[in-house]
Amino acid sequence: MLVQKYKDMLSGKSVIRQLSEFATARGREIGYENVFDYSLGNPSVPVPREFTDEMVRLLTTEDSVALHGYSPSLGITEVREAIAASLEKRFHIPYRKEHIFMASGAAGALAHAFRLVTEPGDEILTFAPFFPEYHPYVDLTGAVLKVVPPDVEHFQIHFESFQELLTEKVMAVLINTPNNPTGVVYSRETLQRLADILRQKSEEYGHDIYLISDEPYREIVFEGVDAPCVSQFYENTIMCYSFSKSLSLPGERIGYVAVHPSCNGADVMVNMCGQISRGIGHNCPPSIIQLAVSRVLERTADLKVYETNMQLLYQALVELGFTCVKPGGTFYIFPRALEADSRAFCEKALQYDLVLVPGDTFGAPGFFRMAYCIDTEKVERSLEALRRFVRETYSRG
Amino acid sequence: MLVQKYKDMLSGKSVIRQLSEFATARGREIGYENVFDYSLGNPSVPVPREFTDEMVRLLTTEDSVALHGYSPSLGITEVREAIAASLEKRFHIPYRKEHIFMASGAAGALAHAFRLVTEPGDEILTFAPFFPEYHPYVDLTGAVLKVVPPDVEHFQIHFESFQELLTEKVMAVLINTPNNPTGVVYSRETLQRLADILRQKSEEYGHDIYLISDEPYREIVFEGVDAPCVSQFYENTIMCYSFSKSLSLPGERIGYVAVHPSCNGADVMVNMCGQISRGIGHNCPPSIIQLAVSRVLERTADLKVYETNMQLLYQALVELGFTCVKPGGTFYIFPRALEADSRAFCEKALQYDLVLVPGDTFGAPGFFRMAYCIDTEKVERSLEALRRFVRETYSRG
Repeated sequence: MLVQKYKDMLSGKSVIRQLSEFATARGREIGYENVFDYSLGNPSVPVPREFTDEMVRLLTTEDSVALHGYSPSLGITEVREAIAASLEKRFHIPYRKEHIFMASGAAGALAHAFRLVTEPGDEILTFAPFFPEYHPYVDLTGAVLKVVPPDVEHFQIHFESFQELLTEKVMAVLINTPNNPTGVVYSRETLQRLADILRQKSEEYGHDIYLISDEPYREIVFEGVDAPCVSQFYENTIMCYSFSKSLSLPGERIGYVAVHPSCNGADVMVNMCGQISRGIGHNCPPSIIQLAVSRVLERTADLKVYETNMQLLYQALVELGFTCVKPGGTFYIFPRALEADSRAFCEKALQYDLVLVPGDTFGAPGFFRMAYCIDTEKVERSLEALRRFVRETYSRG
Repeated sequence: MLVQKYKDMLSGKSVIRQLSEFATARGREIGYENVFDYSLGNPSVPVPREFTDEMVRLLTTEDSVALHGYSPSLGITEVREAIAASLEKRFHIPYRKEHIFMASGAAGALAHAFRLVTEPGDEILTFAPFFPEYHPYVDLTGAVLKVVPPDVEHFQIHFESFQELLTEKVMAVLINTPNNPTGVVYSRETLQRLADILRQKSEEYGHDIYLISDEPYREIVFEGVDAPCVSQFYENTIMCYSFSKSLSLPGERIGYVAVHPSCNGADVMVNMCGQISRGIGHNCPPSIIQLAVSRVLERTADLKVYETNMQLLYQALVELGFTCVKPGGTFYIFPRALEADSRAFCEKALQYDLVLVPGDTFGAPGFFRMAYCIDTEKVERSLEALRRFVRETYSRG
């Protein structure tokens, strides 16, 4: 018999996916260039030239049996060493290869992190608004994802609600900064206060509360913004990183888990990840992608376009009267909708070929997300549609 | 707190891994070319030229944003279509893309198959001797792997034992033909009888018993051997395929699940795999590897060396008095050891720098495995060591 829980999931359609499908279908009618599709968070800039060159070099000069051979289950040793060295240099934390586990993107890294520190029934806390895939990621491990209501003023942490929910059953806290969907970066004050509370509660409850830090947007930080390293604030941090956004290669499924060297259990956690892999069929990310990425650790794709787009949108939104926290990074912005029902708001926007995602999807009704990883030229053209939409739908005159 | 079950697994060291490490260490002493390392099942022939050419073509001519972009969660549509068409042409079963789910090698495919049809506590049956990773693969899903004792005469199926173990709790039967570790191919009679029993018991128990067919060695079949397609015998078959061995790229993690089009649930099973992926952090195999593999579906690496090696070994073993079922494919052979304790036998062989794996590891004590995916020249040189080992250790004179 087929397993019911997976069958049941088939009926629940992702709102983002549905909106993206609408955009594609509408594109067939009026030309996709005329659909202002802000639905999907897919990188829109090319992979760095150096990555492609390195891939071609590996393919044309290395012995193919060695090149395409099995990676050790924790990842290729030199790759793990290179990542540890790069992290140490940048964040001044003494990472060694023993703390690095290669994973298939952030999704793969999180799958291992959750299984490291939670048994079925244990709770993981995260903060609204949040990436909606966190629900299936956590729920299907048997752990329980609980969501702390949003700090709607600044999209930092609503600490009062957090402390209420931080019961003895919580084994891990999951954060994402720079954040999808808000684009906000957690401040030093936020991270310090979070760490203080976690230390205090770990002691009070007599068990470690791990901080799982989902960092796929770490390299997309805008000028003048201070983006502190989460692991510097709290030793029991499990960093989950992906190269998808920084190198613009989300399809190649490459990332890693980096366990803080002073983490409680740091000596066994990466080896435990190797065991977890056996149960979920991961093994390791593709060998050639591991090798190629390890040679371009200090590079990123040309990410400037995201900041350009953000500035254009932020200014236009504010001028139109939107309340909006200015993003510090990512390629998302999360303004308050012009009516309480953000689903209705986004529905109406579709008539102007503006594809926006209601905040309900992210656990923050009343807001909407725009993913501005699209051409700047299109952002510019969309502003007129945005103005018409607001004027014709919400002006009081 | 760290999860105990994964921590506990750290102490259990794989025998194959230990032997492989011994071989590497011994190689440092006497030169690896002088260690007759038959421990590991790693392909030893180059990837087909066409694969490398296609990779380079994709990297140098395709738009990088599209090339490295997210694959749909079930796999890239054209890739799934190409695989379905290739399977249909070859096996005359009307596969369509709806039946194909792209997975990260056979391990990834199996991880999805097990979760499709078993809940924690359900039983999966497999047949000794078997690939030892089946234990963690199954155990960590919460299902229970039960092992049918071997048919030591032919390494087909011991049907009497099978029927005893095929209780109402069994939701799936897992087979691997051509087989690791025996190299034996299941005959038409075996597969027909297996299918008949599964149909009868499915009806008797009032629930489907799925056949999970692990087929990474499908393309490595020796001359004149009839290797029947498992899916042709039983509709409720979930085929788990990997390109690791056929194309010699185990590190690139690419394979698929192919659900029989007449399988009970065929309309939803691939979509269910997409949901399972969310829980185990898979998403999909790397985009570029999917694309490159889809252009070389009818190719394999030059696999002839494995047959050459098998013939050399089989003949030498028989001449030395070993009892041995002749392999029909793979790069394994599984002779009976010359003493009842195959661990002791393999231990003694190490003195001749012959690295053999005791059958205990595969659920068949008294035998040993040789993985002859090594250079023919080394196989030839190993025969003298094998003769000396047998003569000096087991001759009665």
